[in-house]
Formats: sequence, C-alpha cells, structure tokens
Amino acid sequence: MFELGVVYRSIRRAERTAADGLGAFGSTTVHEAQGRVGLLRPYMRPIYPGARVSGTAVTVLLQPGDNWMMHVVAEQIQPGDIVVAAVTAECSDGFFGDLLATSFQARGARGLVIDGGCRDVRDLQAMGFPVWSRAISSKGTIKATLGSVNISVVCAGAYITPGDVIVADDDGVVVVPAASAPQTLAAAVQREALEADKRARFAAGVLGLDMYKMREPLEEAGLRYIDGPPPR
Amino acid sequence: MFELGVVYRSIRRAERTAADGLGAFGSTTVHEAQGRVGLLRPYMRPIYPGARVSGTAVTVLLQPGDNWMMHVVAEQIQPGDIVVAAVTAECSDGFFGDLLATSFQARGARGLVIDGGCRDVRDLQAMGFPVWSRAISSKGTIKATLGSVNISVVCAGAYITPGDVIVADDDGVVVVPAASAPQTLAAAVQREALEADKRARFAAGVLGLDMYKMREPLEEAGLRYIDGPPPR
Amino acid sequence: MFELGVVYRSIRRAERTAADGLGAFGSTTVHEAQGRVGLLRPYMRPIYPGARVSGTAVTVLLQPGDNWMMHVVAEQIQPGDIVVAAVTAECSDGFFGDLLATSFQARGARGLVIDGGCRDVRDLQAMGFPVWSRAISSKGTIKATLGSVNISVVCAGAYITPGDVIVADDDGVVVVPAASAPQTLAAAVQREALEADKRARFAAGVLGLDMYKMREPLEEAGLRYIDGPPPR
Amino acid sequence: MFELGVVYRSIRRAERTAADGLGAFGSTTVHEAQGRVGLLRPYMRPIYPGARVSGTAVTVLLQPGDNWMMHVVAEQIQPGDIVVAAVTAECSDGFFGDLLATSFQARGARGLVIDGGCRDVRDLQAMGFPVWSRAISSKGTIKATLGSVNISVVCAGAYITPGDVIVADDDGVVVVPAASAPQTLAAAVQREALEADKRARFAAGVLGLDMYKMREPLEEAGLRYIDGPPPR
Amino acid sequence: MFELGVVYRSIRRAERTAADGLGAFGSTTVHEAQGRVGLLRPYMRPIYPGARVSGTAVTVLLQPGDNWMMHVVAEQIQPGDIVVAAVTAECSDGFFGDLLATSFQARGARGLVIDGGCRDVRDLQAMGFPVWSRAISSKGTIKATLGSVNISVVCAGAYITPGDVIVADDDGVVVVPAASAPQTLAAAVQREALEADKRARFAAGVLGLDMYKMREPLEEAGLRYIDGPPPR
Amino acid sequence: MFELGVVYRSIRRAERTAADGLGAFGSTTVHEAQGRVGLLRPYMRPIYPGARVSGTAVTVLLQPGDNWMMHVVAEQIQPGDIVVAAVTAECSDGFFGDLLATSFQARGARGLVIDGGCRDVRDLQAMGFPVWSRAISSKGTIKATLGSVNISVVCAGAYITPGDVIVADDDGVVVVPAASAPQTLAAAVQREALEADKRARFAAGVLGLDMYKMREPLEEAGLRYIDGPPPR
Repeated sequence: MFELGVVYRSIRRAERTAADGLGAFGSTTVHEAQGRVGLLRPYMRPIYPGARVSGTAVTVLLQPGDNWMMHVVAEQIQPGDIVVAAVTAECSDGFFGDLLATSFQARGARGLVIDGGCRDVRDLQAMGFPVWSRAISSKGTIKATLGSVNISVVCAGAYITPGDVIVADDDGVVVVPAASAPQTLAAAVQREALEADKRARFAAGVLGLDMYKMREPLEEAGLRYIDGPPPR
Repeated sequence: MFELGVVYRSIRRAERTAADGLGAFGSTTVHEAQGRVGLLRPYMRPIYPGARVSGTAVTVLLQPGDNWMMHVVAEQIQPGDIVVAAVTAECSDGFFGDLLATSFQARGARGLVIDGGCRDVRDLQAMGFPVWSRAISSKGTIKATLGSVNISVVCAGAYITPGDVIVADDDGVVVVPAASAPQTLAAAVQREALEADKRARFAAGVLGLDMYKMREPLEEAGLRYIDGPPPR
Repeated sequence: MFELGVVYRSIRRAERTAADGLGAFGSTTVHEAQGRVGLLRPYMRPIYPGARVSGTAVTVLLQPGDNWMMHVVAEQIQPGDIVVAAVTAECSDGFFGDLLATSFQARGARGLVIDGGCRDVRDLQAMGFPVWSRAISSKGTIKATLGSVNISVVCAGAYITPGDVIVADDDGVVVVPAASAPQTLAAAVQREALEADKRARFAAGVLGLDMYKMREPLEEAGLRYIDGPPPR
Repeated sequence: MFELGVVYRSIRRAERTAADGLGAFGSTTVHEAQGRVGLLRPYMRPIYPGARVSGTAVTVLLQPGDNWMMHVVAEQIQPGDIVVAAVTAECSDGFFGDLLATSFQARGARGLVIDGGCRDVRDLQAMGFPVWSRAISSKGTIKATLGSVNISVVCAGAYITPGDVIVADDDGVVVVPAASAPQTLAAAVQREALEADKRARFAAGVLGLDMYKMREPLEEAGLRYIDGPPPR
Repeated sequence: MFELGVVYRSIRRAERTAADGLGAFGSTTVHEAQGRVGLLRPYMRPIYPGARVSGTAVTVLLQPGDNWMMHVVAEQIQPGDIVVAAVTAECSDGFFGDLLATSFQARGARGLVIDGGCRDVRDLQAMGFPVWSRAISSKGTIKATLGSVNISVVCAGAYITPGDVIVADDDGVVVVPAASAPQTLAAAVQREALEADKRARFAAGVLGLDMYKMREPLEEAGLRYIDGPPPR
Repeated sequence: MFELGVVYRSIRRAERTAADGLGAFGSTTVHEAQGRVGLLRPYMRPIYPGARVSGTAVTVLLQPGDNWMMHVVAEQIQPGDIVVAAVTAECSDGFFGDLLATSFQARGARGLVIDGGCRDVRDLQAMGFPVWSRAISSKGTIKATLGSVNISVVCAGAYITPGDVIVADDDGVVVVPAASAPQTLAAAVQREALEADKRARFAAGVLGLDMYKMREPLEEAGLRYIDGPPPR
C-alpha cells in the first residue's frame, strides 16, 4: 500500500462467471447480498442515466490534476475489466475524455469509476462507455507525476484491490472482493428470488407489517396508535 | 411535536379537488401563488426527470439508517397521498426502494418526498413512482428504532402537517397547508391566466421594462445608461 | 469594475464567425484550445442534458434574491447573445423562469449562464432555451435593488467581459475573450483535426504510451513494472 | 404558519426557572434529557468558542439578504430572551453585527441563533454576545421586504415556537418546547447525577462493557472475539 | 487576462496611507464603505483567530497541486504587501507553510490570501503570519507547471488587480481597487464616526425602529402588530 | 476486509519509539517524510486547537448512528494507542463524548480520530483528550448493530491497519504503516534538520528561486519577466 511509481502486471481477477453475473443484479442487490458493505460514497454518480455494468477492477492511483497514469493503466486492461481511478487528493479536474475512452474500449474495458472529474459526456454517451465520477469538468490535466497501477486503492471511501468485482448502475458503485464474488453471486440470486415473491405480495396489497410480522415487535418497542388527529 | 413512537390514524386531509388541482400548476406557480413560502430546500431533487404530482401528505419521522417506520406509514396511506419522510439527523442512506414503492403504490400513494436517500432508481422510473430525495444510495437500512407517523415534521427545511398538499416536479417540492389549499388553487389559476397573456406579449417582443412599467422606478433608484463602452 | 447602477449600451461583441464557430467544438475542446483557461467552476450544470451553444456575452450583475436587472438586460440583448448573470453573494433562488426566457428568446438570446438558481425547467426544455446554473429552485425573487448591466463580472469563478464568447454544453461553460476568439477558433479546428486521427488509432488498439512516446519519460521518472501480483 | 408581515406581541415564555436552569447542562445533556429530539443541524456553529447560554426564544423570519425585521424583533426582546432568526432561503449574508448586538444586549437578550451569516466577530466576542450561525460574512443586507416576528419558524431544520427554551454551547443548539421545559430540566438534573457516578467508574478503569452489562447482548448479536491478528 | 507564464515586475500599488489606514477598520466596515462590493466568498477563513491586516496585493496564479510560482512571487514582494493566490481549479492542497512564510515575512509581506489550502498552522500562528484560506491540509505540492505573477486574478469569487488594497480579519477578506482606496478610507472614517454615535444610543436602549425612523415605512409595507399570542 | 461482528485481540503495534517519536514532527512533516501519502481528507478537523499527538491505531468500524462498538474497542486499548473510528456511511452524529473519553483516557488512549461527529467539546478540552472529527454534534447514538474492532478500515479516505502510527495536529491527520514507521521517523528527522537550515536562510532574505536553483528551469519552462505594468 502507499507505493508510488509502480505497475503490477499480474493481478488475480475474480472468477469471470461471478464478475459477469453480478451485473444483472445491480449495485443495490449486490450491496445487500454481501452484507451491506463495499459501497462507494454516494457522491459518485453516472455521467448519463441508464447504464449498468459489472467487471473486474484494474486500478490506478492518480495525482491531482495529472492523468499520466491513465495511459499506463490502459495497457493493463483486459476484456471485461472496469478501470477504477483513485486520486491522492480531492480534485474535480477532467482526467478522462473521449480519446482515452476510445483506447479503453478498444482494450475491452466496460467502464470507468473515477474519484475525480470526467469530460466529453456527450461523446461518451454516444460511444456507450459509462463513467461514474464525482464531477464533470472540461478542465484538462497534465502528465508530470507518477502514481501507480494495480495497487490496492481507496476510491470514494471504499478499499479496492485489483481483480475485485465492480458493479455500477444508477444507484451507485459497489465493490465485491474477488475471493467472495461467487458466494455473493449466489446470495444475490437467492435474494432476487425472494424479492420477486415479496414484490407480488406487496403489489397485491399485503403490508410489510404483516409480511415481516412486525406488529408485535413494534408494540414491544412501545409504538402507540392513536385514533384522534395529531395535535397541531 | 417532538413525539416519538406514535402513529396518528385520523388525519384531516386537504380538500381533494384542491389537492389534485394544484398539481397541474407545478411547484413554482404554487409557490408564488401562496406568497413565496412553503418551498423545501433546493437540494431535494427528483430521482428521474419529468414527473409532476400533487397529493395529500402522510408523514413519517425516521431515525438515521433505519426504515422501520416506512412499513408503519404504508398502512396509513390512502389513494391520492404522497408520503413525506423526515429524518432526525442528516443521512443519505437508501431508506426506500422498489419493494416499498410497490407497497406504497398498491395503497394508492402517488410519490415520496424524503429528506434522505433512495435506491432502485431504474425500477422506480419503470414503475412510474416518483421520488424527491437528498441523495441516491444503495446503502440499506436497519429496523431497530421507533420514529412516528402522521405527526408534524420538518422535512428539508419546511414544516409539514399531515394532510397538507404536496406539489412536486422538476423545479422542486412545495407544501401548501390544508386549510389554505382552495384559495391557493384559486390564486394559481388566476396567476396562470395572467402569465399566459404576459407570455404572449413577451413572445411578441414587448420588454418587461415596459410591460411592468419599470423604467421610472429604475430611474428613481438611480440607474444610469451610458452609451459608450464599459471600462476594461 | 465594482460599479453598481449602470447600464452600458455599447459593447464590442466578438467577431460573429468566431462566436458562432466555437459552438461546434464544445467547452472541452475550446478550453484546451485556449490553453486551459477560462472555465467556469464545475458546479455550473445544464438544467437539461444535450444542449450545446455558443454566443456573445451580455452581462448582468444581480443582487441576491433580486432579479430586477434581468428585465434591464433583456433590452440589451441582440440576436446571437448569451446572457451571463453574476450575483453579489451566493444565492440559489430562482431568478429566471419561462416568462423571462420567452422575452430573452424573442430578443434573440441563445441561452443563459447564471451563478444562481433557475426555475420552470420543464418549460425551458420544451422551449429549447438552455440554462446553465448553480441550482434549480422554485424560490421567487423581488425587484428592489440595482445591479448593473454590461460591466465585467466574475461568474462562477471566471472573469467575463461583455462581448466575450461563451461556449456551453454538458461538460460545462467556457469563456473566450473577444479579442482572441478567432485564433482560439483556429486552434480548436486544428485540435479537432488532430483528435480525429488519434481517435482512429486508439480505436485500432494503439496505446497512448506508444502514440505519445511516453515509455521513455515514464522510465526516467522512475516507473517500475513488476510481474508478480501486488502485495495485499 | 407561513404568515408574512406580522408581529405577535404577546408570547407565552417558558417558565423562567426552567429556561435559566437548562443552560447549566449544555446542549448535549438537554438533547438527551428530552429524548434525542430538538437539535438544530450541526452546521450551526458558535462564532467564538466557550460560550454557553440558555433563554427563551423570540423568533424572527427574515428574507434572504434583508435584515429589516431584525430591528422589529429588537423591540419584542425581554431580559432572558435569545433571538432565533430563520431565513426564507439559504443565505450566508451578514445579517447581524455589533450595532444590532448592542441594541439586543441593551434589551436583555443573551444571544442570537441565526440560520444565516453574522459579522463583527471580534466586537461580538469583546462584548460577550454569543452568536450561533451557519456562516461568518462581511456582506451587508438591505431593508426592503417584510418577514415576521414571533411566529413559529423552522431554523436549521428545527421547528421553534416563540417562548421555547434555547440551549446553546460549543456542541450546538437545542430547542426545548416551553411546555415540557420543567420536566426536561428535571430529567437533565437526574441524568447529570447518573453521569457523575459513571464518570468516576470509567475513570477508575471500569469498562462500559461491564458497567452497562453489554457482553451478553453483544454475544447474542453474534460478536466473535479472535485471538490471532487480523488478516491483511 | 488569462495569460500564463508571465511575471509583471512593475505594478502600481495603492497609495500607502490608504492601504495602511484601511486595516484599522476591518473588512466589514470597508466592505460597507465602498458600497457592499469587493468581498471574497465567505468560505475564506483565517487559519487562526484574531488577526487583522491590510496591505497592497501582489498576485499569483497557481496550478492545482503546484506551488512553483510561490517562489516566483516571493521576489516581487515589497514591504506592506499581501500575497493573493488564485488557483486555476478548486484544490485544497497545502500550497504554503512555514518555510515560505519565513521567506515572505523576510520580504515584508503582511499575510497571504489563498483560494487553496495552507499548512503549518501552529508555526504560522507562532510567527504571527496570518493566512486566509479555503482549507487547511498537510498535502504537499509539486513544482512542475507555470502560472503567472502580478496579473489580475479571480480569487474566491473576487476580481483582484495587483496593487489593490486587501483588508482581512475574522469577518473575511475585502479587496479595494487601488484607485478608489483614498475615498474608501474617507468613507470608512466617516462611517465609523457615525457608528460610534449609534452604538451609544443603542446601548442606552434606543431602538433602531426609532433611530432609523422605520415605523412608518414598515407600516406602509403592511406590517401588522397583533396583541394576542401567535397561533400554534 | 469487510468483516462485520468481529474483534481481533492481537494486533502488531508499530515499534513504540517510532510511534512516539513521530509526534514531535507533526502531520505535515511526517506526510512529506513518507512521500506525500497517508493523509486523511482535510475535512477532519481538531475539535479544539493546539493539540499534537502520535500513537498506535486501534480501529473500530461503526454503523451510522450507533456507537455500540465504542465500548467494545475500549477494552482493546493499550497505553499509547489512538482510537481510529470509521463509519459505514456518512454520519455526523455525536458518537463520542466525555464519558467514553474518560474510559478511553483511563485505558491509556491519547486521542480519537473519527469519521463522524463528536460532542462534549468543552469537557474534552478540559480533560486534554483531543479528537479529530468530521463534525461536532449533540446528536446521540443507539447501541443496536454490530461493527468490528481491529480490522483494517477506510477512515476519511485513508486505509488504516490496526497498529499503524497516527500523527495528528492542527494541520490534519496522517497514517504511517507500522512496518515503515522507523524509516519514516528517520526521514522526518533528516527533513527537519534540512528545514532548520533553509528556514534560517529564508529569514535572512535568500529567495527560494536561488536556494532551490529554480531560475533556469523556470526560464526553460518559458517564464517571461515583463518590466512594464500588467494590462488591465
């Protein structure tokens, strides 16, 4: 950790079936399926609505206002990867635009998660290359200082190791450790099955109070029902 | 006020014609029609664009990170209601998603206004269940601590009493007290009529300076016109 | 500068061909083409996605919560202008809505850039009148205090002189000084030509490392490649 | 509620002994003593450290950038009051400085709580007139638009009725409804007594795990102790 | 404007008597004395309380994360100057610490105003070298990219020309154009004299309502006094 | 990582001499000495000025609004430790006050670093127990949900492993990995020695331009000196 100026070329990617399969469930279900951990801070927003992807993380640590390492990480991308970019200090500059996206997409990347800014939004949407970022900004960057590629990073408050699974959509971005991706996928499948049943019952008018048998614990906790109107 | 652990079952809802009619005018016109009061803080944003609703408020006071009371408020919903959720401290967690939305919609709710986070954005848009929130987040919540239902609450800086009218659209969220909803509707109708005429005149090139007879008061206030270019 | 209560009627607008031509390139290319200066702070966002405009700035300095000068600036608009509104203190109020937009559009304005709030989003999108603002808010404003029209202003951190060129799109807002607009346009044309070539090579799988000959400077800077996996 | 342009001259202040007595306990103890409600948002900070006051609220609703009503509320101050100022929209302007403070202090006010900006910090500290505000700003305000005095207001997210008790110190600001002030004072006295005992036991090295008998519920909740080192 | 890589060696500083004299009045009085313009955004805060300075601006435009130009501006400092540092993008890095402060102080600088971060707070306070900044951060910066010295800059929302007068204290930072500094000083002297009289009358219990003869305009604006208690 | 409901009892603390020695240098020097990494986000501020501590981290992962695990971590404290508290979602609640501080201090803790809120500021200052936090808030917390103790956590954007060294003062908070603490201490000692010399030369009026031999590289980068005044 904390190592600058280094590129790791051999990372252990999460099992492909799990990495691909998790995308179908979206960030919210996956976040729940792994016990409500692994969520990046909610300031990370998609630059255009409607995208949902999953893939294996290749990571890059950038210096503020400097996107030199973006070209270094491009070479490490394999099909099915999602690039995860952390920055050593808060910075909203536009580290990434349509040229780099063309390069990343040609290498097989499915998207970018960056704790900084992004630009060329219109082009990226036209290309179908989704980005989750903390800002949108035309501000360009220089190429002067080394960061690192494929070290573990902290991105938007989450600790991400190269090879972990990233799931991102309109709700946000979740990281699943490579080792636990298969069981998280299994848990997500199971959760989704349960939810389908619950959804049908909710749609039929059943209340959560009854479905989840909450009336008794609520009463025990002291909840009181009053038939008159509330005081002003 | 300030009462925890209580559910009021009998609230006096605003007159239905007024509650429904205000929706046609949108939050901006309604806000003006009632004298520029009742607006929730502008950090409250729709989770998807284009929705416009009005309805009667059923309120719920939540604890941070805890959505237990969401199931309690579901039972109090009647067709034409909008759920208004306040939280006892700032919290961006995802208190609400597609399952609860299914339940709320089955009970007749037209939307949710929550001073916290929301998730399952894609599903909610597909269902046509609009939400105005301070955040979007996959972060789940627990069910451990009591709040209240149908007490007066402060939501995003506005004081809202159960039964008040809520009007929400892309511009934001406005609350209209139940008692004054009919006269606010009348004022909105009148305002809209005046605006149609003004709009036509503006489109024809008439200036506000002339339409509103502002030239004289501006001159009295000391406005000076200079024909040369501005100094650099 | 700092002059209140004054309207300059004669401003030197940037050469029309340059002002119109820059719009085709968008804020990011123009920002790069003029040496990475002139960008407004990235909190300035379009109120609806997809618009791209350029035009000559007419400026207005507003007082917080007061849009009186908006009617004064309307008279100074000429076809091809973009109104740039600064405020003497941070304020998210809705200074601008569909009526003023009708007036501005009738005068030939192509859009508004305002370091404050905007309302009537739905109507403005229907009219095709784009706005870049720091907030969306139904909150109305009064007409009580003088500001100025067509003085140089600071808007969202950028210094803008009346007649400068404004370029705005989904990436943000850039100002180009009137005097340098033609050479910035030339630079943008040249940059775009170079980018088309680069884009094709990136799409063909060429890496930036090779295209930009970065391998040697990276090595000189001390970048090390490690073939084993990263340490946990 | 929502009434503009009105001054209520007769408010029912909380019982004086309770209003004065609560100040000795500070905002945190009082907040706990009344069941963890009534706290203003934590962005409200003292303009200088070390002050602790309590008193009865006289309220004023201001318009953004306009402090006209501050002079109206001054006349309604009685010895032992704290002025609570809400604003109809977010605004950081300096609504209050040393002249108004001199006036308020001469009328017997003990402090000001304002959901806006304050100035003359150095003078206010020298005078010993504490202020809790959302901002410090030299920006002056005008006197053009009516607000109200002694209506119920929402200030920094809390609903405050004239005559309620305000307790403010370095931890923040709490409101106690006038009617419940005596029992809240009693609860605070009792809580403080308990805390003194606990403090002594903590100082002697007793753990909360044992003092609060938490070991069993933690085990039931599934907490596991592991003697080896944590995994990297 | 917008010129990078240039150092202007000959700037016209404001008249010394005015530059020095304004400091005695503080930012709030000076801001009022020049008509409520020239205030930097209130996020600019002193790194320690109690300092009040005035001086003539030497300006520097920095790149984010890069303090190279700080050493260039040091050479341009003359006794009585205050350094004003703008940054081309938002950045909280610590551009300035005790070593640079020692250098600036040795050259005769009275303080620093920086729209970025500062570090070595403890040392700077011990040295008596005041700084107003947007952040405090240990994060260091590099020396790789040119900015400019003594060009006009936008710092925290204000336009500042080299040689202008800067006045800074606990209330914030104000810029006074060099040309108008003498008359602003005269206005400040006059204002302070008037305030002393007002202060005495306020202290004696006179109300602003009477001192400023506000009762009639308030009544004309429609203010109503009600003797009963406010409605709940 | 990501493990909930677990307490590791055996952590490898950094070597005591290094952990203690680093405190003398402060967060800025230590941050530089280890290559400009390891800084927590600058929103982490001391609750009172002037404290400077170093120590070995014991970590705790809290749930938002829940301080149950604070009592669990207390038992794991050894003399010379600093407690580092992360939270699974953004939360400003007051997780920590004078009672817990009494307990922590009795166990030998030197301070707390918490990515949440803190209360009882006055008491903590009187006790000399420093806290660095993201907020100050009277809001209390519940004890309902498990987190973990002595797992690696992300706190304010930094990855912290139990046993790492924490250095905190008015400039912020830095983490030094346990393994590299001795060499970071050595580097800090060396850096400080160099700085003393530089400080003396700066104080004597030597410019950084000359001390660091920057004139040539600046000229090569294209810096131009102009003797006339800057253009307006």
